[in-house]
Amino acid sequence: MAKRVTGPEIEKLIQLLAKVPGLGPRSARRAALHLIKKKDQLMGPLARAMGEAHDKVKVCSRCGNVDTIDPCTVCTDDRRDQSVVIVVEDVSDLWALERAGAMNAAYHVLGGTLSPLEGVGPEDLNIRTLVDRAAEGDVREVIIAVNATIEGQTTAHYIIDQLAGLDVMITRLAHGVPVGGELDYLDEGTLSAALRARTTI
Amino acid sequence: MAKRVTGPEIEKLIQLLAKVPGLGPRSARRAALHLIKKKDQLMGPLARAMGEAHDKVKVCSRCGNVDTIDPCTVCTDDRRDQSVVIVVEDVSDLWALERAGAMNAAYHVLGGTLSPLEGVGPEDLNIRTLVDRAAEGDVREVIIAVNATIEGQTTAHYIIDQLAGLDVMITRLAHGVPVGGELDYLDEGTLSAALRARTTI
Repeated sequence: MAKRVTGPEIEKLIQLLAKVPGLGPRSARRAALHLIKKKDQLMGPLARAMGEAHDKVKVCSRCGNVDTIDPCTVCTDDRRDQSVVIVVEDVSDLWALERAGAMNAAYHVLGGTLSPLEGVGPEDLNIRTLVDRAAEGDVREVIIAVNATIEGQTTAHYIIDQLAGLDVMITRLAHGVPVGGELDYLDEGTLSAALRARTTI
Repeated sequence: MAKRVTGPEIEKLIQLLAKVPGLGPRSARRAALHLIKKKDQLMGPLARAMGEAHDKVKVCSRCGNVDTIDPCTVCTDDRRDQSVVIVVEDVSDLWALERAGAMNAAYHVLGGTLSPLEGVGPEDLNIRTLVDRAAEGDVREVIIAVNATIEGQTTAHYIIDQLAGLDVMITRLAHGVPVGGELDYLDEGTLSAALRARTTI
């Protein structure tokens, strides 16, 4: 804003809100005004929730999930089959797979993908801890659920190499046509994969 | 999420973030993960900024702007021409006009528009205080800058009636073609208004 029209505290709030993904400078102002209007119903509780999350959040030392306890809710859930470990790039992938609700398994969050260009090597990811987990003998299956990108697949190959020789089954997500997807909009790679992996009806 | 995969504090944070305009349930999760990753650079400062804004924010008793002081930054700015008052529906309109930077005037925030259907009458808006301000004798011009909607125009007419008899000039924003706008995409009302208000070159 050219001239100041409100207090520095509110301008600071707008500046910080603009750094939240999904909010730009314009929507940060709208969000700030909404928070001000819902001062006691939303801004107060959100400030407290953020403060509490800030103080309590930790990364699970076993699987890399974020939680307020360590080991995390997933690792300590004995109704899950802890012998099946789904390997994901990021915590957001863990959450996405849980929303699908298809598996009742444990997870392992790598924290990214191998990227020599960006200087991300194996030691920067939670790969050592995955191999250690698999070597302990309690893991029956490791499901590689990294993104179907070049970086993801490179990382998958590295992990498969590291797990070689251990007594675990290694699987990966199926490639194919997304449910609800239209063939016309899909790339050739996906269509080829879907054809190769065709199933009988 | 079907099963809990993280602590209740983090789920609470996601729930509250989803209520911020601009963020839905999916982007709230992404925002929460980003905040967790930027715990000390963003989540902590944002929690403090929200807490501080929550404690300090007030509505200016003179013009209806939101600020941390009362009267607000705009009302106490003696480099502004306080004898010109721009009447807007909402604080967001005040901020939008200030970004344009075209006027160095004072403001009056109505807090909405008249809406008999929704039970919003003149006493629910800051109209009485506007008339009082105009009656004090220090106001030379009142610029009606409400939205060009039916509700906005109804409210404008009511305000003009209330200001009748006072020694103030009443003006309104010009209608016309938006700068950068294409005629083909504009409605007939706007085009008619732009033709009627045509200017010599």
